[in-house]
Amino acid sequence: MALDAAAALLEEQGPERLTTRAVAGRIGYTAGSLYFLFRNRDDLVLQTNERTLDELRAGIDSALADCPTPRAALLAMGRAYLSFAAAHPARWRLIFEHGLHEPIELPASLTNKIDELFGLVAGYLAALTPERDPHAVRRSAQSLWGGVHGITVLAVTGKLEVGGSDPAESLIQDLIGHYLVGLVQLT
Amino acid sequence: MALDAAAALLEEQGPERLTTRAVAGRIGYTAGSLYFLFRNRDDLVLQTNERTLDELRAGIDSALADCPTPRAALLAMGRAYLSFAAAHPARWRLIFEHGLHEPIELPASLTNKIDELFGLVAGYLAALTPERDPHAVRRSAQSLWGGVHGITVLAVTGKLEVGGSDPAESLIQDLIGHYLVGLVQLT
Repeated sequence: MALDAAAALLEEQGPERLTTRAVAGRIGYTAGSLYFLFRNRDDLVLQTNERTLDELRAGIDSALADCPTPRAALLAMGRAYLSFAAAHPARWRLIFEHGLHEPIELPASLTNKIDELFGLVAGYLAALTPERDPHAVRRSAQSLWGGVHGITVLAVTGKLEVGGSDPAESLIQDLIGHYLVGLVQLT
Repeated sequence: MALDAAAALLEEQGPERLTTRAVAGRIGYTAGSLYFLFRNRDDLVLQTNERTLDELRAGIDSALADCPTPRAALLAMGRAYLSFAAAHPARWRLIFEHGLHEPIELPASLTNKIDELFGLVAGYLAALTPERDPHAVRRSAQSLWGGVHGITVLAVTGKLEVGGSDPAESLIQDLIGHYLVGLVQLT
């Protein structure tokens, strides 16, 4: 319930207004009573981000349901990433612009979720080019994610159109599509 | 001189501290006397961004000096984009996170500089695949830029390493390199 309130606050009022006090107020608790859920704002942000990653993962899993090939799966993941970010821009941006007060080590439960997402991408890439070494496959997962992330962040912040008239979805398909053809060609 | 001061302020103290008053203070003028240079903060931001684009362009031109092929030129542009952003992170980010107070139309002098950069990318892409139609070439320029931008923004904000261990430069080369092979293959 507290994390639902945090998500709603974020999307309605932006990251500056996401505080344990505001979350408590929204669900009719005192700030002190939330201390057992969130030790401080950093903890609230990290738990919110973890929940966001769960929802992103659910969106990706559902997009992957009917993909007949690794190529179709990777294209579907790109689309799902963009559509999640477009639907929940404030929560999605908080993952990358969390502004934690202290440079803390991320909890393992959170980094594991991130690793699983990269593992998913790497799995489809490996299926596409089984003879490539795992390090090269992981590099491809990282650069493809970076590429899709870039088009997504430009789209979500309204900066994409300075570069042309194509919508983000077609750019993501263009980027992933040509990259994969190049990958297969060079392997 | 005022724009030099604005650039230094930005890199030293971040975008929040970039005000006409702070720029005036830094060069020993009164805030009022700068009114003839910058009508307001939005104007200061736009002029600063224009100067940043000029320097980015100079960095790209110099990286392009010894490129024997369109492929080498596009790879060099990716490297130059990353290295400019890494060297001047606050100024580079201000282009995309300018936080203008009003949703104003960008001045033509600024959008022309952006168009010229895209024209440069599109020119090399067209040289690589002369038979493609101009709209498809422009889409490629937009998706490649988005991709390089994404890896760069993750690198500059310290988020790239959640995805793997490869440095941004090698990811950008990987992304552009495979994309171009795919492009030539499909044309």
